[in-house]
Amino acid sequence: EAKSTVNAALMDKGNYKHFMAKEIHEQPEVLGHTLSQYVDYTQNKANVAGSEQLRFKDLSRLVITACGTAYLAGLVGKYWFEKYARLPVDIDIASEFRYRETPLSSADSALFISQSGETADTLASLRYCKSQGASIGAIVNVPESTIARESDVIFPTIAGPEVGVASTKAFTCQLAVLAALALQAGRERGTLTFEEEAKLVSELTELPTLTLKALSNEVEIQKLSQQLSKATNALYLGRNTSFPIALEGALKLKELSYIHAEGYAAGELKHGPIALIDENIPVVVIAPFDAIYEKTVSNMQEVAARGGRIILITDERGAAQCGTSPETVVVLPEMSDIVAPIVYALPVQMIAYHTAVFMGTDVDQPRNLAKSVTVE
Amino acid sequence: EAKSTVNAALMDKGNYKHFMAKEIHEQPEVLGHTLSQYVDYTQNKANVAGSEQLRFKDLSRLVITACGTAYLAGLVGKYWFEKYARLPVDIDIASEFRYRETPLSSADSALFISQSGETADTLASLRYCKSQGASIGAIVNVPESTIARESDVIFPTIAGPEVGVASTKAFTCQLAVLAALALQAGRERGTLTFEEEAKLVSELTELPTLTLKALSNEVEIQKLSQQLSKATNALYLGRNTSFPIALEGALKLKELSYIHAEGYAAGELKHGPIALIDENIPVVVIAPFDAIYEKTVSNMQEVAARGGRIILITDERGAAQCGTSPETVVVLPEMSDIVAPIVYALPVQMIAYHTAVFMGTDVDQPRNLAKSVTVE
Repeated sequence: EAKSTVNAALMDKGNYKHFMAKEIHEQPEVLGHTLSQYVDYTQNKANVAGSEQLRFKDLSRLVITACGTAYLAGLVGKYWFEKYARLPVDIDIASEFRYRETPLSSADSALFISQSGETADTLASLRYCKSQGASIGAIVNVPESTIARESDVIFPTIAGPEVGVASTKAFTCQLAVLAALALQAGRERGTLTFEEEAKLVSELTELPTLTLKALSNEVEIQKLSQQLSKATNALYLGRNTSFPIALEGALKLKELSYIHAEGYAAGELKHGPIALIDENIPVVVIAPFDAIYEKTVSNMQEVAARGGRIILITDERGAAQCGTSPETVVVLPEMSDIVAPIVYALPVQMIAYHTAVFMGTDVDQPRNLAKSVTVE
Repeated sequence: EAKSTVNAALMDKGNYKHFMAKEIHEQPEVLGHTLSQYVDYTQNKANVAGSEQLRFKDLSRLVITACGTAYLAGLVGKYWFEKYARLPVDIDIASEFRYRETPLSSADSALFISQSGETADTLASLRYCKSQGASIGAIVNVPESTIARESDVIFPTIAGPEVGVASTKAFTCQLAVLAALALQAGRERGTLTFEEEAKLVSELTELPTLTLKALSNEVEIQKLSQQLSKATNALYLGRNTSFPIALEGALKLKELSYIHAEGYAAGELKHGPIALIDENIPVVVIAPFDAIYEKTVSNMQEVAARGGRIILITDERGAAQCGTSPETVVVLPEMSDIVAPIVYALPVQMIAYHTAVFMGTDVDQPRNLAKSVTVE
């Protein structure tokens, strides 16, 4: 199981009712710790020790494989590697990847993501890639884990032991490591200038402050979660890096509250799921005011036109331009593109947490779930 | 809109209550027509005119982009291209792909799938790939469409005009074309011997017979659909090429019956969605008796242990070895791996159709949906 260096039973919830609440609130701090390992603040450069093992400069594509929430971190990573390093990413769920016998060679590099470092399907995928001669990197929270030991290079998250079964701080720390890796790859591949890299790194350094501000919406989120706890179904929508965060929001709500929530790329709505929309289904829309904000808002209005009840998570400019369709608007500070998926993860975590608390489910140990999935 | 050569209003439902029922039952015939365009029966070879435009031999990866059901056909195609031609496939939803500015060059080829050939996001993705110099192929059902006109080569499905909004025969014909293309690519890349290709082609030629047999389960499917029509939520599970068919089954049920159905890779169940399982949620499991049958059945047993009500779609050997967990077993004939996802599409279509008929929804024109999505 999760070989944390600290025994969970001996851990302290502090002033929190659940480990999950404590872990959500630790994020500004552990993101700061994690970033300080991967960026050089004095020079505003990504500084990922061991990244040369992945040979970013010569790669034609990077393979990323993981399960569950870690897979969704990888999906955000795909957008970043493609945008900042022009490096195509082939990402797959580990339970699918391991039986696909995907074509690979010693010219390839593969990156695995697992909080515990013991996830069975992810480990089997790693061993397959290794057998094909690929270089292996891993983002893990437990540096003594099997996945860490079998990798050529590891990029540890400095999240500290995570006790709640539903991953929160490990997820955002995985994202922080992926962001730094993508910038490192961009520098090595010559797709980012020093100025661009410096700007992006300085944006990343705002994460502790921005996540702290995001936590200040908790009272409002508690209120909307009371409403949400009466629902039996929900949809989460987003585009670009907000798409994986929509998937993550739905996964968290499902895990904790047993409400059937599903995440969708907002643009896919018209190709089927919009048939579900009526006045009984809450729709959480994740839409920072970015280059595709208008596209997402237009999908949101289609939902509103069919009676769907909208919870919009956006920033001040987004809130000013969203019209009257949302029933509730959660307003985060304005922020740059690269930090948005990390910061927007916090309100979706808090929504799942408070909804589950209202429903009285076992937040730290949801039914049917294990922290570390060491079987297939 | 869908520029069918025949006006839908003038078309005849024949002895069927809905166009969708008619189109489901046309599949053995239109699959035969489509295949006869793409394989050489006398020599048992794939024979795809114009495939040289995609330069399979020299490709390092193939990009596939589509929306909705056509995207799911592409996802099956990914498994086939990787298995039979050892060609990595980068597949994405068109509404995401078009704004990602994915790295591409004139050495790349991209394949687009659209029944109408007018899908706005797919067309925009095509134009992006073209602007990057990539070679463009399209699988369309309307050869006069915009997507067809802007492609370097088209691979028409011979499905005839499709009137029901929820795609059925166009989907399975897209799969038949993709299968032939994957075998063609395998021959051109030297990853299939003549004997292997001949065997696979002769397996494909059984599609009309096998799909006809699959239709013979209709009475039984009608019965289980009556039960299903009482549910408010459902899950669909599968692995490998049955995973996209699980996604397709869930999408169809959602579109037609407004039941919130969600498809999942069976191996991902433990990473979250298993928390949803209780005695109120029907779980449709798609598991032909293949190399990963046991893995899927083990996931099915986890569902059963938590009270989930299972509908298993399998073959005779699978039915003999599935134990007592399924409430209902739909038994298809035994068949080879390459035809399975095409044939297994039929029971999931029939389940969605009959469930919707029991619920009294508008089968041929579900609420909120359009046949051809020509806006973003």
